[in-house]
Amino acid sequence: MIDNFAANDKFIEDNLLNNINELSQLCKFQSVSAKNLQLPETAAFLSELFIKRGFNVKIFSDSGGPVVYAERMGRIDKTLLFYNHYDVQPAEPLELWNTDPFDLVKKDGKLFARGVSDDKGQIISRLSAIDSLLQENELLPCNIKFVIEGEEEVSSKNLKPFVEQNKDLLKSDACVWEFGGVDDFDQPILYLGLRGICYVELSVTTANQDVHSGLGGSIFPNAAWRLIWALNSLKDQDENILIHDFYNDVVPPSEMDIALFKQIPNMGDIYKKRYEIKQFTKGLQDGVDLNVAEAFSPTCTICGVTSGYQGIGSKTVLPAKASAKIDFRLVPDQTPERVLILLRDHLDKQGFEDVEITFLGGEAPARTDPADPFVELVAESATSVYGMPMMIVPMVGGSGPNHLFIENLNVPVVTAGVSYPGSQNHAPNENIRINDFINGTRHMVRIIKNFGNL
Amino acid sequence: MIDNFAANDKFIEDNLLNNINELSQLCKFQSVSAKNLQLPETAAFLSELFIKRGFNVKIFSDSGGPVVYAERMGRIDKTLLFYNHYDVQPAEPLELWNTDPFDLVKKDGKLFARGVSDDKGQIISRLSAIDSLLQENELLPCNIKFVIEGEEEVSSKNLKPFVEQNKDLLKSDACVWEFGGVDDFDQPILYLGLRGICYVELSVTTANQDVHSGLGGSIFPNAAWRLIWALNSLKDQDENILIHDFYNDVVPPSEMDIALFKQIPNMGDIYKKRYEIKQFTKGLQDGVDLNVAEAFSPTCTICGVTSGYQGIGSKTVLPAKASAKIDFRLVPDQTPERVLILLRDHLDKQGFEDVEITFLGGEAPARTDPADPFVELVAESATSVYGMPMMIVPMVGGSGPNHLFIENLNVPVVTAGVSYPGSQNHAPNENIRINDFINGTRHMVRIIKNFGNL
Repeated sequence: MIDNFAANDKFIEDNLLNNINELSQLCKFQSVSAKNLQLPETAAFLSELFIKRGFNVKIFSDSGGPVVYAERMGRIDKTLLFYNHYDVQPAEPLELWNTDPFDLVKKDGKLFARGVSDDKGQIISRLSAIDSLLQENELLPCNIKFVIEGEEEVSSKNLKPFVEQNKDLLKSDACVWEFGGVDDFDQPILYLGLRGICYVELSVTTANQDVHSGLGGSIFPNAAWRLIWALNSLKDQDENILIHDFYNDVVPPSEMDIALFKQIPNMGDIYKKRYEIKQFTKGLQDGVDLNVAEAFSPTCTICGVTSGYQGIGSKTVLPAKASAKIDFRLVPDQTPERVLILLRDHLDKQGFEDVEITFLGGEAPARTDPADPFVELVAESATSVYGMPMMIVPMVGGSGPNHLFIENLNVPVVTAGVSYPGSQNHAPNENIRINDFINGTRHMVRIIKNFGNL
Repeated sequence: MIDNFAANDKFIEDNLLNNINELSQLCKFQSVSAKNLQLPETAAFLSELFIKRGFNVKIFSDSGGPVVYAERMGRIDKTLLFYNHYDVQPAEPLELWNTDPFDLVKKDGKLFARGVSDDKGQIISRLSAIDSLLQENELLPCNIKFVIEGEEEVSSKNLKPFVEQNKDLLKSDACVWEFGGVDDFDQPILYLGLRGICYVELSVTTANQDVHSGLGGSIFPNAAWRLIWALNSLKDQDENILIHDFYNDVVPPSEMDIALFKQIPNMGDIYKKRYEIKQFTKGLQDGVDLNVAEAFSPTCTICGVTSGYQGIGSKTVLPAKASAKIDFRLVPDQTPERVLILLRDHLDKQGFEDVEITFLGGEAPARTDPADPFVELVAESATSVYGMPMMIVPMVGGSGPNHLFIENLNVPVVTAGVSYPGSQNHAPNENIRINDFINGTRHMVRIIKNFGNL
């Protein structure tokens, strides 16, 4: 490992206002993908930022939010790939913002703007690290590639074909994911895996209209009851998912995974207090088992149910329609495609041929081996910035398109960046701390230089 | 039975325009109890109608909709009680009316107005029958009492104490209910019983806020799942209600009930076509079993369910709250009070102490014995008007406050009146056919005279 970064660190600090100025310009673009706003304009601005740093840039405009691809060669033939996105969540509710969400404001050592954490600040921090490296040597320590998409906040709907059709272009040896930062104790965290998801709507229709319950209650089928019985067949009260073969593809956490989870702070008591939860499911108590279960269990979560009368007081009606939204979180090696097949099969065998399944979206689970040398490199590179190595989290509960990179490019994927738990991603007053921006950038310089030196 | 009603029938026809004029005035009052509109004004107008017919009138104003009580003595010491209501359902949606809902319109042999069938037309028809009798003899054939409430459309919430506190005043030998009329084949129908109802909301709260399903899915309790499991414990897929002792108080239909149900037209195929239902519950086919089940089975109907995200597409959320509205229809001798106790006991024993029950309303079931002589009198009195006797239906699926009269006054309660299946009660373009008004009035004259002669 290289251990002298004094010149880089100084440059990052000296150049800080320039980079914040670029971040401010980037945040002015209201690149809300859900509203299809200013996506090509933002992509064009981003490509300028890369071109002025000597990158070759290509814009792929097949979809609403063009993909910005940028590359610059390095001293050695090893390639580090960065995945980011320039689209942002809607800023609403506007009345809860203390400042204009699209006008970057510096206050109390923080920068406030929609997207400043998710994900524009991450992009500029990475560019700032590159500035520091280029100031030192006109050849980068390794080849660098960027894929910056414009539809991450709307399920990355065009990313799959893009990655699959551009495997050669994206060929690389390791990947840094779009998000990253420190935890409540200011320790940087390295997430190695994301669960998959299979999101479906189940719906039942039993008649062409709702009927007075005095008339039909005894003899007409009731869509709400059909749905309740079908849902009940999916999971028992001990949280066992009853779909045949559902658990077949589950790979349990390894000994190394468990050892890593033991280092993660216990969250049980914090969760209980924060959400006023009386007890966890499956009799789980605060501790490593809770941490492991949170990330490594597949789930069958009812996200919503709707049927019949839902207003104030009583209405004596027998509903003709009922539906539920269900989110299955998947762990390696489950896939949404397989779960869909198993679910249909289950419902049919249980006598629920009348329950329709609408697939609303899916991602495969994917993870990077904690024993991959790149993981240690990234974790240890943090020590000379943060005073400690990164905490390695083998898997988190959320989902994302990391499997596209892991499967198609066969690269390890790590997280590192400039956010903190108070960043308010997706919420009003999104912000980052300037100190985290500096630290994250310094960390990125170390990752790139150590990678080129590996 | 008396068989000469020629003078009465002629008078009814001659007096028709006067009575329609009174009905028109009565319908002008927008006596919408749900909005607490013009209820005292309507009660005052009604008392004028009774006073000019020589009735003693008393208005009970303890509640929002005063009760109009009217009585006039007859030749013999037998008393017939009429129960009616002067309040109406809201007229909305107004755009679906072809005419002003509060301006009675005569068109194509029909009278259109809100309340013309439910229940103002019934009141005026009964007054019209009394006009015909008074024109014949200044003493009525029997004592006549009227109870006309102003809160029927809002669950008759003050009727129970009124009846209980005025048993002596209301003392009578038989009661004619507020609704009545002919069926699709123009045969008049006599309903003898109404099921009871126990309407509850079940609700569960598992946390103080919804949580991201990626975070909580594996370890946090889910309100929607708790509710689904609790609901599932109430009824199996064969429609058996699983609450312990729920069926204990059920009195099965008698042989006479079954014999009467055999005379009722089969509705199965009509229901299947009208509501596009593939099959009935419990394997029931068109026929007497379906008719009996429709009216004589207690039910546990989910009227509505709500939890979590119900919009378009997907939202990965774990709901903190879930609730369902449930309507138990009850048959003699079940009671809503007992069902509430059994339900709480059931949920607790099944481990659902966390499921709260909110009682939203109830009525006891009640029925009149088909062998009661008054039933035959009313049914046979129809023959000289309609060319056939009434069809006697021992029980219908709906609910109402008939138990208050049956239990407190110990009277048989029958239905007879001026409505038809196209009357659109509670809906836009409510109407009655003028011919049904004449026939219903003639029938009422016969009921009163035969009753006085019994």
